Amino acid sequence: MNEKRIYNFSAGPSQLPEAVLKKAQKQMLNYEGSGMSVMEMSHRSAIYDAILKETQDRLRRLMRIPENYKILFLQGGATMQFSAIPLNLLQKGKADYIISGYFAKKAYQEAKKYGEIHIAASSEGNDFSYIPKQEELLLSDDADYVYLCTNNTIYGTEYNYVPNTNGIAIVADMSSDILSREIDVTDYGLIFAGAQKNMGCAGLTVVIVREDLLGHVRKEAPVLLDYALQVEKDSMYNTPPTYAIYILDLVLEWLENLGGIAEIQKRNEAKAKLLYDCLDQSDFYSTSVCKKDRSNMNVTFRSPNAELDALFVKESSELGMCNLKGHRAVGGMRASIYNAMPREGVEELVAFMKDFEKRYKG
Amino acid sequence: MNEKRIYNFSAGPSQLPEAVLKKAQKQMLNYEGSGMSVMEMSHRSAIYDAILKETQDRLRRLMRIPENYKILFLQGGATMQFSAIPLNLLQKGKADYIISGYFAKKAYQEAKKYGEIHIAASSEGNDFSYIPKQEELLLSDDADYVYLCTNNTIYGTEYNYVPNTNGIAIVADMSSDILSREIDVTDYGLIFAGAQKNMGCAGLTVVIVREDLLGHVRKEAPVLLDYALQVEKDSMYNTPPTYAIYILDLVLEWLENLGGIAEIQKRNEAKAKLLYDCLDQSDFYSTSVCKKDRSNMNVTFRSPNAELDALFVKESSELGMCNLKGHRAVGGMRASIYNAMPREGVEELVAFMKDFEKRYKG
Repeated sequence: MNEKRIYNFSAGPSQLPEAVLKKAQKQMLNYEGSGMSVMEMSHRSAIYDAILKETQDRLRRLMRIPENYKILFLQGGATMQFSAIPLNLLQKGKADYIISGYFAKKAYQEAKKYGEIHIAASSEGNDFSYIPKQEELLLSDDADYVYLCTNNTIYGTEYNYVPNTNGIAIVADMSSDILSREIDVTDYGLIFAGAQKNMGCAGLTVVIVREDLLGHVRKEAPVLLDYALQVEKDSMYNTPPTYAIYILDLVLEWLENLGGIAEIQKRNEAKAKLLYDCLDQSDFYSTSVCKKDRSNMNVTFRSPNAELDALFVKESSELGMCNLKGHRAVGGMRASIYNAMPREGVEELVAFMKDFEKRYKG
Repeated sequence: MNEKRIYNFSAGPSQLPEAVLKKAQKQMLNYEGSGMSVMEMSHRSAIYDAILKETQDRLRRLMRIPENYKILFLQGGATMQFSAIPLNLLQKGKADYIISGYFAKKAYQEAKKYGEIHIAASSEGNDFSYIPKQEELLLSDDADYVYLCTNNTIYGTEYNYVPNTNGIAIVADMSSDILSREIDVTDYGLIFAGAQKNMGCAGLTVVIVREDLLGHVRKEAPVLLDYALQVEKDSMYNTPPTYAIYILDLVLEWLENLGGIAEIQKRNEAKAKLLYDCLDQSDFYSTSVCKKDRSNMNVTFRSPNAELDALFVKESSELGMCNLKGHRAVGGMRASIYNAMPREGVEELVAFMKDFEKRYKG
């Protein structure tokens, strides 16, 4: 029986800010004197509508989202967007996909059902250890959009540039790095993210879409996937995931209170540096990720062999640093250090890494 | 500022059992000594897998679901199933729909995108005030399925029989009466329900499907809507709505503890009888619902005029009986008295109704 909270390095769903959980706990039976839990509120009620609007407003402020971009609260995770994106955005029927990891490839495979989809670049031949560079991109002149995934959770790579696409809209899966660093929303046509890493809990997907891209939904698209309809209905065509939206609201409130995205970016960079410095100074640990494409969200590394990797995961877990096992496609270890992971968690991990190295170095 | 919890007569999302909210509150920061909130758990972890399996097992026990029926935990509400059902179940391309209310009609309209859909019967001409009878049904010989909605939330009608369809699978939307009364699952080919009425919170849709109906998904279907794939992956093709599933687990535990579906059915019938007796004994209140098709979940009624209706809603709300306003399509009042509404809530409402009648009767 563990009375203490652990450091949860899971890739997602993952650790949430304790302040968010405490507020949700406090309000569980009675939200602000309404006599109801947020879970019990009609999505059409004035009190719930205020929560939804507050969440949209906070997100718009934090990310500086211009008015011509609409914010949608949807369901089905990033995977549902893999279908919704081609179903909504294909007009001429062509799109370019940059394959930088497992989920970008999944998105590409799904899009092929609906149009002529071209691989603009892929790092699969190098085990997805880097982000394709601008010079590598083979972009079509007549694509409806260019698709990419800004952070590759499994491999630990992250875009450090915005591709030049000659004005063609970029569609970006930001599931694992949204809200972690400042971006210019106007660099993108559509941004989407599953909430269960940096935004809240599973069951909510946020879509931010430039309104001029809408209005071309395919007739075979399920009605709920029609972005233009969801914009018209303000994400309320049917009952939205009301509680998950409320948790997002609390996460955004926490983020505003600590200083917004500029501040969390500073903290995230500092946290990641602790880990990467430790890796760089070690000849015990290694990482296959190209240095300039290292992710500040997911840090992948390995010890000299698989037995030591397993022991690392076991020992760290016993010390309350959990879910450090790497994805099965990569092996080794992975520390997911999203916004909610406190610096202390990373410091503890680095101290453990150094101790483990000392004990097991040949 | 209201320190007391209200009686919430909302049609959904709606009141949850207080025991469920209290347990969720207690476990919010640390689920059973894991050091984590359920929201923070990886859906691939052993601890979360145990919650998912427990939820499936409880539902199977409570509803006596045979092994050849699979239980899926999906997203997108009933509306997403309006698309998924034809995309998965149409083989010959034909289906019969019984239109007993707004949502059945919505399902019909969506299915028309994907096949030749026939209206087997409709009560729309009579303002959906009754459930079409067996004798009225014009069923096709070669339909892939017959679609119906067992309880019509907006109008307050509920099926009191299972149509004879000559062996053709019945697909039933039970969003607003699942778990409220005993049914024989084998009467149906597929049962589905949004969780936000009798099962938990919004953002989770439960599908119970006979396995022999699967394996014919259309190639244009979004990958996440493929039932057979979701069966194969045990609802984990991607991250499921983990917290909403946990809330369902707590609701099912509460239901088991109080004696299961037979017991809640008794209580629901008694609660509904209190209200219907009050209506039948009154010449102040009226209801347009056909007596034999009255719903035990949603009781619709009206006072002599719209001004008194508005006053009724205002006064009852001030007394802590909230969300009694009828749907805009019907007007008047609607008391949704799902499983979680305690008998005391209905007794208070009946007492108020009698008092209101006394005060405003001409």
